Amino acid sequence: MIDYTAPLRDMQFILSELAGLDEIAALPGCEEATPDLVAAILEEAGKFAAGVLAPINRQGDLQGCRLTADGRVVTPDGWQEAYDLFRESGWIGLSAPTEHGGQGLPKLVSTPVWEMWFSTNMAFTMLPQLNVSQAEALQIAASEDQKATWLGKVVSGEWGSTMNLTEPQAGSDLAATRCRAEPAGDGTYKLFGQKIFISYGEHELTPNIVHLVLARLPDAPAGVKGLSLFIVPKYLLDADGNPGAKNDVRCIAIEHKMGIHGSPTCTMSYGDEGGATGWLVGEPNRGLETMFIMMNEARFGVGVQGAGLAERAYQAALAYARERVQGRNALTGEAGLPIIHHPDVKRNLLSMRARVMAMRALLYTAAGWFDVAHHHPDAAQADKCRRYVDLLMPVAKGWCTEIGNEVCDDAIQVFGGMGFVEETGIAQYFRDARIITIYEGTTGIQANDLVGRKILREEGATLRELLADIRGTTAQLAEDPVLVSIGVDLSTHAENLESALDWVLANGKDNLADVLAGAVPFLHLLGTVVGGWQLARAAQAAQRRLAAGEGDGAYLASLVELARFYMAGIAPRALAHAETVREAGGPVSRFSEAAF
Amino acid sequence: MIDYTAPLRDMQFILSELAGLDEIAALPGCEEATPDLVAAILEEAGKFAAGVLAPINRQGDLQGCRLTADGRVVTPDGWQEAYDLFRESGWIGLSAPTEHGGQGLPKLVSTPVWEMWFSTNMAFTMLPQLNVSQAEALQIAASEDQKATWLGKVVSGEWGSTMNLTEPQAGSDLAATRCRAEPAGDGTYKLFGQKIFISYGEHELTPNIVHLVLARLPDAPAGVKGLSLFIVPKYLLDADGNPGAKNDVRCIAIEHKMGIHGSPTCTMSYGDEGGATGWLVGEPNRGLETMFIMMNEARFGVGVQGAGLAERAYQAALAYARERVQGRNALTGEAGLPIIHHPDVKRNLLSMRARVMAMRALLYTAAGWFDVAHHHPDAAQADKCRRYVDLLMPVAKGWCTEIGNEVCDDAIQVFGGMGFVEETGIAQYFRDARIITIYEGTTGIQANDLVGRKILREEGATLRELLADIRGTTAQLAEDPVLVSIGVDLSTHAENLESALDWVLANGKDNLADVLAGAVPFLHLLGTVVGGWQLARAAQAAQRRLAAGEGDGAYLASLVELARFYMAGIAPRALAHAETVREAGGPVSRFSEAAF
Repeated sequence: MIDYTAPLRDMQFILSELAGLDEIAALPGCEEATPDLVAAILEEAGKFAAGVLAPINRQGDLQGCRLTADGRVVTPDGWQEAYDLFRESGWIGLSAPTEHGGQGLPKLVSTPVWEMWFSTNMAFTMLPQLNVSQAEALQIAASEDQKATWLGKVVSGEWGSTMNLTEPQAGSDLAATRCRAEPAGDGTYKLFGQKIFISYGEHELTPNIVHLVLARLPDAPAGVKGLSLFIVPKYLLDADGNPGAKNDVRCIAIEHKMGIHGSPTCTMSYGDEGGATGWLVGEPNRGLETMFIMMNEARFGVGVQGAGLAERAYQAALAYARERVQGRNALTGEAGLPIIHHPDVKRNLLSMRARVMAMRALLYTAAGWFDVAHHHPDAAQADKCRRYVDLLMPVAKGWCTEIGNEVCDDAIQVFGGMGFVEETGIAQYFRDARIITIYEGTTGIQANDLVGRKILREEGATLRELLADIRGTTAQLAEDPVLVSIGVDLSTHAENLESALDWVLANGKDNLADVLAGAVPFLHLLGTVVGGWQLARAAQAAQRRLAAGEGDGAYLASLVELARFYMAGIAPRALAHAETVREAGGPVSRFSEAAF
Repeated sequence: MIDYTAPLRDMQFILSELAGLDEIAALPGCEEATPDLVAAILEEAGKFAAGVLAPINRQGDLQGCRLTADGRVVTPDGWQEAYDLFRESGWIGLSAPTEHGGQGLPKLVSTPVWEMWFSTNMAFTMLPQLNVSQAEALQIAASEDQKATWLGKVVSGEWGSTMNLTEPQAGSDLAATRCRAEPAGDGTYKLFGQKIFISYGEHELTPNIVHLVLARLPDAPAGVKGLSLFIVPKYLLDADGNPGAKNDVRCIAIEHKMGIHGSPTCTMSYGDEGGATGWLVGEPNRGLETMFIMMNEARFGVGVQGAGLAERAYQAALAYARERVQGRNALTGEAGLPIIHHPDVKRNLLSMRARVMAMRALLYTAAGWFDVAHHHPDAAQADKCRRYVDLLMPVAKGWCTEIGNEVCDDAIQVFGGMGFVEETGIAQYFRDARIITIYEGTTGIQANDLVGRKILREEGATLRELLADIRGTTAQLAEDPVLVSIGVDLSTHAENLESALDWVLANGKDNLADVLAGAVPFLHLLGTVVGGWQLARAAQAAQRRLAAGEGDGAYLASLVELARFYMAGIAPRALAHAETVREAGGPVSRFSEAAF
């Protein structure tokens, strides 16, 4: 097993210095989030992650899940005990409203906590993560009766949750959904159809599972505007609200996957024996809107998976590089040195750390905006943060998952041959990570969302506002001789971003295909610049504390150096991405499909 | 199974138009390589790859290899039949000298053939690939007696070959080798020690296995100058030269790896029962030099693996993108379209194709230089090509393996969720590919070789010469209005490369650590520019034929467009790499190791 140490110092620095924990704790409804409580929660979560989830991660990979002949799904050893402990500790409801049994803490506080779960056992954590997402959807769309029946059990984790969107012919394209729901005449519905890629669609870790299922009512309009959402429990409830008769839903297959072996990916069949009983959630034909609430929550969570896996891979690579002795010092000829002393390995580790910190800073800052959007009494302030969250959600998902994969890949490279063999455990992170750029919307889908819905639709207004904020930072950096070079670099890359934005806006009407061909590079460009902005802010905060003689000087100085490295080692990608956004669309559009 | 179609048209175009097949066929010793024979060989190889190797690739992944209690290694079903057929068809000796039973064809001809083997079954192909590498080493270093005994069997593939360098404490750092060899007094030696990561170290596909083993003689100097090379057969030969008594060597474990499951990766133990009998190859303490001949051959071959796996992944992604219907046309709203019509998917496929072609053009061109270096009667011409090969060998290995991984990764993205499940087969390419940036010297090792031995040591002379050749191409491109923009872009990136070179040369003495921290980005930079140069040459050749009214106009026009895409979608990375080379070394060197 690869040891895990919760990066509490980095987390705390970003929470306080970049994401505004103090300001958020002062918002109405967030008062619980005192510095002492937050510190205690992070410390406990770190212990739980390292002590409970990390130790069973590898056996989850090795054992995987299996479907028995009688349709049961068996999860890996240790899953049940860990889940019971997780649930009893109240971790699932950390940021759920208190009226539904949650602890009502801001998203800013739950984000680092979930990062630790993902770092230590992503396959396991997908189970409670589904509860969090489903709880969000039910809060918004379910009736009071439905909330009374289902929501408390979902928030507490007493019952499991799933999200049933995908069908064989309907992956990214939910308009092609065929699953159907017929009114049973008693207020319930009968569901029929097959759903694929359903994480934790079947298991026995909880006495019931609440499936949220997208399906079509009779005579529903075609396309996404004809989708309705249903609660379909694994077991129907008896008169006391306890799981009773088995509903007409079953797992008929589980996937053999490259990674996340501990998380069963199920093919679910609804209605083979006359129809699965379900309850309509929200209005007919408005199911997708609700599902997207859940999806947006889940997308942010997947971005956090990127940072979490990358942190773990970085820790593993760092430990290996400090321990593995190989080669000589290229300058002095000194032998017997750990490989961290080789400049290329050191660059690789620094590059991993820079990207992990950039992702984390971006995600926590976005979580803080999310809290401001939901709780700030000043409508303008709240609205600005809501727009920032909307703009950056595809980046939080798309960029952090792509970068998370990169970092896991780099970690293998540090391990060399030992990275390719499974026994060191690092290969698992790399394999597990490969799903995160795909599920909950591929990077291509995120990029189309970014360029189409978030930029073109409003003519780039929010991104201009964000660019003005970035320029605010560069102006401040210019005033400090220690930080001025960071500011110059950030300013250059903000210009690259703006020039790409100008091009996108100028071509969005007449050359939309060209623009969309550059959507993924644009997403990378925005992520690269915003990540750099956050590290520049971190350097600024560190320098401020250094100047005031506060804190750990060596740590703070390293944050300034980290930002300098990012500007030299990562941010220059913005040059390439911006040029590709502007120049590659034409050749892509012109290339004949027959010529491939 | 994913179908494979040998990309004969692309291969032939590059062979004739870029790598100079005609000129090479005119060299003394290469006369066999007539256009007709080459076409026939490629066609036969394509059939063999698609018909024999491709069908057993997935079962090799699923079954893997196993070590039995009595120390035998069992390879996957179909391996024996495929190997027998491969050997009988004479594929192993394709480019070996005729005096040792080979066919004496130029490397330029064998390179596309091996690309096809790697495309269709990399795990299998590693077995005969070891024969080719070992034959090269024996030709150069073995005595006439040794050649008579071993070389013919290696070239024909009657016996298997291995290459035993790595030990637990000696991976990239062969100076730490501990395996020892003691003179037995009868001209043979007794070997003792353990070797790890030995591909095909044990199997029963051939009646004998010839191990080439690095070990230390008594009183050998420390470090790499005390390594000698030994032939250690699995079975000692009887009086008739046939395999007789078992030698004192055994496989004691095989690795559980992320990929190439069909290739057994063995831990070999020598001398547990009194010493494994071996024969010294070449002079004492000069073993590493010989091993490096073999290693350089193997490194080029691993670069070809990158192109081969990428071609296969590209074909698979393209087929899936043409078949999978999902979503609507973003411009017209038209439904029911295959995903290749989505601009992002199309960009991804084009980007895959551009990189595959750039790698292939780079590798074949280098193979052509190799042949000129070995066969050209004009010493200056031969010497120039030898220097080009030396300079670009780390790029052929390092860049093509990194890019090969990227392309396999992108292919998964085209498959979406179906890419993460194992049943489609695309996941296997991604997992198999992950070893190629590691074995035969990691990308970091290649980059250090490039910057240290190939550039600093000669003050960049050969790279300046190569840059002059690139500028020769840009000057020609500037004269054709169709190609002028490609020339302008190539020229820009050549300038980026030269500015990075200048910086490396200026800092190689006083800031070596900074320079080495940028070695991998420098390798990427050089690969990106040279790959672009080759695609620009391809566009030029295509345009020349178009102007002459020859050939398939649509295909030729697509090559011009491909170069334009590369300049817009791939080459801009050179901007980022060059800046990172120049700027990142300082922050890396300054960063305190304690601050990680």
